[in-house]
Amino acid sequence: MTRYQHLACLLSDRIEQGLYRSGERLPSVRTLSIEHGVSISTVQQAYHVLEEKQLIVPQPRSGYFVASRKATPPVPAITRPAQRPVEITQWESVLELLSSRIEGDVIQLGSGIPDLTQPTLKPLWKIQARMAQKQDINLLNYDSLLGVTALREQVARLTIDSGCQLTADDIVITTGCHEALSVSIRAVCQPGDIIAVESPTFHGTMQTLRGFGIRVIEIPTDSVTGISLEALELAFEQWPIKAVVVVPNCNNPLGFIMPEARKRALLTLAQRFDAAIIEDDVYGELAWEYPRPISIKSLDMDGRVLLCSSFSKTLSPGLRVGWVAPGRYRERVLHMKYISTGSSATVTQHVVAEFIRQGYYLPHLRRMRQVYQRNYETLSCWVRHYFPCGICVSRPQGSFLMWIELPEAFDAVRLNAELRESKIQVAVGSLFSASGKYRNCLRLNYALPINEATEQAIALVGAAVEHAMTICSVENPAGTMLHIS
Amino acid sequence: MTRYQHLACLLSDRIEQGLYRSGERLPSVRTLSIEHGVSISTVQQAYHVLEEKQLIVPQPRSGYFVASRKATPPVPAITRPAQRPVEITQWESVLELLSSRIEGDVIQLGSGIPDLTQPTLKPLWKIQARMAQKQDINLLNYDSLLGVTALREQVARLTIDSGCQLTADDIVITTGCHEALSVSIRAVCQPGDIIAVESPTFHGTMQTLRGFGIRVIEIPTDSVTGISLEALELAFEQWPIKAVVVVPNCNNPLGFIMPEARKRALLTLAQRFDAAIIEDDVYGELAWEYPRPISIKSLDMDGRVLLCSSFSKTLSPGLRVGWVAPGRYRERVLHMKYISTGSSATVTQHVVAEFIRQGYYLPHLRRMRQVYQRNYETLSCWVRHYFPCGICVSRPQGSFLMWIELPEAFDAVRLNAELRESKIQVAVGSLFSASGKYRNCLRLNYALPINEATEQAIALVGAAVEHAMTICSVENPAGTMLHIS
Repeated sequence: MTRYQHLACLLSDRIEQGLYRSGERLPSVRTLSIEHGVSISTVQQAYHVLEEKQLIVPQPRSGYFVASRKATPPVPAITRPAQRPVEITQWESVLELLSSRIEGDVIQLGSGIPDLTQPTLKPLWKIQARMAQKQDINLLNYDSLLGVTALREQVARLTIDSGCQLTADDIVITTGCHEALSVSIRAVCQPGDIIAVESPTFHGTMQTLRGFGIRVIEIPTDSVTGISLEALELAFEQWPIKAVVVVPNCNNPLGFIMPEARKRALLTLAQRFDAAIIEDDVYGELAWEYPRPISIKSLDMDGRVLLCSSFSKTLSPGLRVGWVAPGRYRERVLHMKYISTGSSATVTQHVVAEFIRQGYYLPHLRRMRQVYQRNYETLSCWVRHYFPCGICVSRPQGSFLMWIELPEAFDAVRLNAELRESKIQVAVGSLFSASGKYRNCLRLNYALPINEATEQAIALVGAAVEHAMTICSVENPAGTMLHIS
Repeated sequence: MTRYQHLACLLSDRIEQGLYRSGERLPSVRTLSIEHGVSISTVQQAYHVLEEKQLIVPQPRSGYFVASRKATPPVPAITRPAQRPVEITQWESVLELLSSRIEGDVIQLGSGIPDLTQPTLKPLWKIQARMAQKQDINLLNYDSLLGVTALREQVARLTIDSGCQLTADDIVITTGCHEALSVSIRAVCQPGDIIAVESPTFHGTMQTLRGFGIRVIEIPTDSVTGISLEALELAFEQWPIKAVVVVPNCNNPLGFIMPEARKRALLTLAQRFDAAIIEDDVYGELAWEYPRPISIKSLDMDGRVLLCSSFSKTLSPGLRVGWVAPGRYRERVLHMKYISTGSSATVTQHVVAEFIRQGYYLPHLRRMRQVYQRNYETLSCWVRHYFPCGICVSRPQGSFLMWIELPEAFDAVRLNAELRESKIQVAVGSLFSASGKYRNCLRLNYALPINEATEQAIALVGAAVEHAMTICSVENPAGTMLHIS
């Protein structure tokens, strides 16, 4: 990708996102040349590309203006999963995804790993070293089953930003958000029960439900507004649903933030049918909007929301420090926590508590939000440049995950197998469904370093997708093609 | 307790344990005086006490000899739990035990916490500090779901001592032995299934079975030879038992090491009825005999034994590093591990691996075995001195836990409530039963510092027991009294 192509991509993104509005005057060629450190002619070439695409129009002696009408590129349409409880499969594919995670030479476009290279993480090491030097025997011992008090206090404080009013006593520390979700699910239902989930849904949640013998109903989910409340209501009327699991903020994998009104409506629905809500907020602090979006928990008056989160996506997954605010299910959650791992590791809890207490956490979060937002701009440029037409792309509002929908007949599992030869791995969409849907979808990670290797990987994936799409359109000439982006 | 009483106690223990055999000549007064740093007259007084108890006999001009016949003090008789599957209760009592664990000023005679004050643990801190200084990004990231390879290699090597031939690939690292047991149980059975356990059984296992909706059959267990194979066979014939959970080495709470022949017979029985064996070996490395006793896993030819252990009792419970060798259940165990906590914490795994690799682990183990054996001698002296007659005491063969059986009518739950006022806590026996048995039993920990405060606590417990026994013999004049120790 040349410089002018890159710049064109970036500008068209800004137009799409409404940063430059319809009819607005664009920055001068000279301004852009200085801002991006490129030559005047590069900017002129970029503007030329946009002009050709009819995104901008030149006005003599005044510069360039955003064209009055700009078709937004399509996001994935609302999903249409099966409307009945199903058994969950896909464990083998999850295992494959996990295995490639530790192969050093694989470019892991499919992982859920955050960027761990930023300097704002450094104090974590210093705190760890200082703690070891203290040689405090209490750090070797079990701590409370609830978790270390100092950490629970910090977590309770952090949740204020999502509108919650919690105290340390409302928090139970867990071994990552994984355990928070796992104990929450086990606290609110029994094997054989039915739980409603967004479709697509994080594969970890899906496998947990499977492991506990719980059936799921996948609810149609819109890539902008979230779970369909209409479909959920119908499901509630038909089935004895015990709980709903949602990722309302920076959804994994779709990236949306559920509008506040819909969060309220979801809670009302859960109240009406007396169901619990398991709210996975693990990406909530990485929302680009300020202040961060509220949690459903913040609206919860009768303790039916179990708010689950961790420091795995914001700080470090290797620490395995997560937490749950279990509301009225506190005692059951504590029992499930006890039988799952007993107390959580002591030192790591203190390390995280100190990192927050010493004021390192919020600046780190701010930086990560900026990094991911910038990365997103670049990645979406690359995707549009290197991927063929006929795809839909999610428009995440935070975090570092992007969802790509390819034509129905496309087989991402086959694609992934092919890519393994080039040491590239993507997350295939079928991981995110209980009923084997989304085989035509991919999830990409843009927490990876934005460098030539990553661009080359995206280019390779794009070429492989194009190749596969040619084949599948030959094999399925009548296959539904989606809008062209 | 005066010096001579202490010495008398110690010597009588040695006689009981067969260190000085019947008819053998005892060390001279002078030798003992030097060995224990006490005066000649103290030794003479101690010998006088033993002579009065008819444990030793003086021979003119030759010194003292062990009396030809010495009645061994009683150990608890074989247990007689209900011979049918039962639901598990007692969660509230477990929670109470766990809560008192973090109250700094409570003397925790009931905990399962090891001695964390020994200098052989110090390198753990150094390794931790050095690791933090390296600032290796991989330590912040997820590692393999199986666990860090370096640690799995070390664990595989350690298991050679228990007769196993395992490789790193046979090991799955877990968040403590708690998670090892939890994922093993979930890997081999479904809710509603029946599992056989020793009676009494570790309360963590009991609560895990309860949490997963599994019914248990408590099998009569001998405090010297372990689970009754005869009773187990009968249970197998009557019920569709999916698995047996045992702690064959340094049993918690009874302290026995199951004889090798019985380990073999148990495995044969499991093969005959096609059941899995979940072997909890968390105290196995703390056996006083050398070489350490074999695990049932070492005899296992068809992969039906899931060997569970951790570094919580040998190194530090706060690290939460455990492991399971799941045999043929590997894939199910991996799935259960994934849904329970995902990968385990990365840094702590590397810390333990380095501690072993640098040669610190085995010397530490040797020291801890000596410390606990010495502590046991002292604690059993104190118990015999301060507790009333009419009790039975387990004779542990390793680890740091002692089981005391009081007369049937005795209520340890009430005792524990009374002791809380004196800031002392014991583990009440009923925690170790699904059917509410062992309310007349206590478990004491002798990993605590052997100092005046601990002695005073034992004295207080003894007095409270004596007081309660007087009351209960008045309330239940026909109550069965056990042998007098």
